[in-house]
Amino acid sequence: MAQEIYYEDVNVGDAMPELVKGPLQKLQHVMYAGASGDFNPLHTDDDFAKAVGMKDGVIAHGMLIMGIVGQAITGWIPRKDLKKFGVRFAGMTKPGNTITVTGSVTDKRVEDGNNIIVCEVAAKDENGDVKVTGKFEAALPSKA
Amino acid sequence: MAQEIYYEDVNVGDAMPELVKGPLQKLQHVMYAGASGDFNPLHTDDDFAKAVGMKDGVIAHGMLIMGIVGQAITGWIPRKDLKKFGVRFAGMTKPGNTITVTGSVTDKRVEDGNNIIVCEVAAKDENGDVKVTGKFEAALPSKA
Repeated sequence: MAQEIYYEDVNVGDAMPELVKGPLQKLQHVMYAGASGDFNPLHTDDDFAKAVGMKDGVIAHGMLIMGIVGQAITGWIPRKDLKKFGVRFAGMTKPGNTITVTGSVTDKRVEDGNNIIVCEVAAKDENGDVKVTGKFEAALPSKA
Repeated sequence: MAQEIYYEDVNVGDAMPELVKGPLQKLQHVMYAGASGDFNPLHTDDDFAKAVGMKDGVIAHGMLIMGIVGQAITGWIPRKDLKKFGVRFAGMTKPGNTITVTGSVTDKRVEDGNNIIVCEVAAKDENGDVKVTGKFEAALPSKA
């Protein structure tokens, strides 16, 4: 769980702590399906996935990868401070991929009395292929 | 799983099919923790949650709620067509809440040869309290 972090301690250019998850396993898709209730067989049934054009079989739920990015964020910034989070889906994730989430602070500003930091994040696999890029905003407490 | 949907069949003002999930249960947080590897006890241990200020105990992973919104989207728009998805976290979700996701098309345009639709979405509980608002963009195939 993220410790409190203060606006004064975050600077443009700072790197977010990396999060590495993997290798991802098919079983994780099954667990995610059960947790989310999203039982699209594209994620759990290789035959089905191949029949709809995925030549290597199942792919991860896009939301699972987005969730991994979210986990990287909330491992650094307390969840209560996270205000906005958006992603662009850039590629599909397969079983065996190891996802590394990195990010850095691109802006900080005081807006309507809130101490806002803006960070850009990316999730890549072990080959450097980008799966998700994104951006988040958090409102941090001040030491003042 | 979403059937293919064509640009010509989507119009500004169209409603997205509603998705209702709930009542959410504490066990779902445990399942989500196992699936995501996000074991922050704020989501699974009432005593811990109360000690950090949640007077009613555990709250849902924000990413679980974001995932439910994503599930509403990919139940309507095939995952491969979904390009961007962003949310603003507006409130905390507790066990017992039933989440309803609604959305509507706010824009459509051809951009760089892609048929883009833009939709705004919201997840509310049974009292109408907003948990997440968001926006997504999808690139749809054309019948032409």
